[in-house]
Amino acid sequence: MIRRGFQEAARLSRHRALLGGPHILPRLNPTSAFGSSTDSLVSRFCPEKTDLKDYALPNASWCPDMLSLYQEFLEKTKADGWIKLPSFKSNREHIQGLKLPFGLAATSDKSDWRIFTRCIQEEGQGYEYVIFFHPSKKKSVCLFQPGPYLEGAPGFAHGGSLVAMMDETFSKTAYLAGEGLFTLSLSIRFKNLIPVGSLAVLNVDVDKIEDQKLYMSCIAQSRDQKTVYAKSSGVFLQLQLEQE
Amino acid sequence: MIRRGFQEAARLSRHRALLGGPHILPRLNPTSAFGSSTDSLVSRFCPEKTDLKDYALPNASWCPDMLSLYQEFLEKTKADGWIKLPSFKSNREHIQGLKLPFGLAATSDKSDWRIFTRCIQEEGQGYEYVIFFHPSKKKSVCLFQPGPYLEGAPGFAHGGSLVAMMDETFSKTAYLAGEGLFTLSLSIRFKNLIPVGSLAVLNVDVDKIEDQKLYMSCIAQSRDQKTVYAKSSGVFLQLQLEQE
Repeated sequence: MIRRGFQEAARLSRHRALLGGPHILPRLNPTSAFGSSTDSLVSRFCPEKTDLKDYALPNASWCPDMLSLYQEFLEKTKADGWIKLPSFKSNREHIQGLKLPFGLAATSDKSDWRIFTRCIQEEGQGYEYVIFFHPSKKKSVCLFQPGPYLEGAPGFAHGGSLVAMMDETFSKTAYLAGEGLFTLSLSIRFKNLIPVGSLAVLNVDVDKIEDQKLYMSCIAQSRDQKTVYAKSSGVFLQLQLEQE
Repeated sequence: MIRRGFQEAARLSRHRALLGGPHILPRLNPTSAFGSSTDSLVSRFCPEKTDLKDYALPNASWCPDMLSLYQEFLEKTKADGWIKLPSFKSNREHIQGLKLPFGLAATSDKSDWRIFTRCIQEEGQGYEYVIFFHPSKKKSVCLFQPGPYLEGAPGFAHGGSLVAMMDETFSKTAYLAGEGLFTLSLSIRFKNLIPVGSLAVLNVDVDKIEDQKLYMSCIAQSRDQKTVYAKSSGVFLQLQLEQE
């Protein structure tokens, strides 16, 4: 999700590596995170106590499929190592206490900033979603229910709304799995339309981490897996967020 | 933007071609539209008189760059063949009197349906954009100003919001240039972040029309063309909307 000047970012990163001697980027171990451990990233990302509103909680608009799969995954958080990610109104809240790399500075005015996938606050009208993440498997599952403000063809979700949901799920997964910050590329093949108000399940995998890049894939389908909505892949650049 | 069951759509379309004799899909002339002429599509799409609100008009939130480039293109509509596309609240309004192909049916309840890129109605907070289309050049230009509800990284537009804007610009262009209806695939390479509140100019070209597919490309950049935000390509399947 953070993408400004990442050519510059990659260049500086490469330069730093060169300063240390080796003339190639350090080969990263796919089983370890870039700089911080996945555990420390997760515990920072999922504060046990916060006054911030978590938008990734059930509400009256959720369809029965969404609600029951949410409950299933909630059970898995107790035993199977899955973690339910909170979802705050803005990424500013997610990265509190950290500064953006390479001189990127956010204005700090009093505007009502919202992360795009939480742009519509009326329950059920826009994005309803919740992301579960599995640290050791480096997988995520996003339960996504598009509302009538996300329409493309009459009665169906706009392709762009699905791509944005994929980008956001990639983004959170990339950050937690390996400090992936910059989306370098996305590629999507569409298969079927998602009816407004129904559930799409996005399964995201980190396929490999190599040369400071995370390679991820996603399949979006109906709960019974009989209908594939779309398949996508994404590449993210690893960069550390520093303490302020 | 219309994507349900397009494997089925392509299959049936192919079947129809086969019924007519040739065992390959008809090779389409890139200079002509699929079934309807571009002129008839444009005149249907841009009604001279309508009570529908056009959201693609300047408002107080538009930055000076957006406003002045809008005026420049408005001048070009008088002499250079450019057309300013209206932008209604829902695609239901854009395709009034036409039915979706292959049994796709939209519910007709009284919900407040909105096309995704017009999901936020507060001026300046979400999507501000206007698309100009050139029928004979088969080009479009979209002036896009993301608001604070479209945030990704603090202070910058979410990648997904840009992809959705590209998909929507591709979609309208594909329809008018050659009855492109189904997005088959999208591919995006990100270069730099777009600051919230600033102008991004999306230049879209139809590169070729072949085997019932429109191949399109887009470059999103700053007005002075010094900063490239992203490059993308998209493939759309041609299908005719029939009269109801």
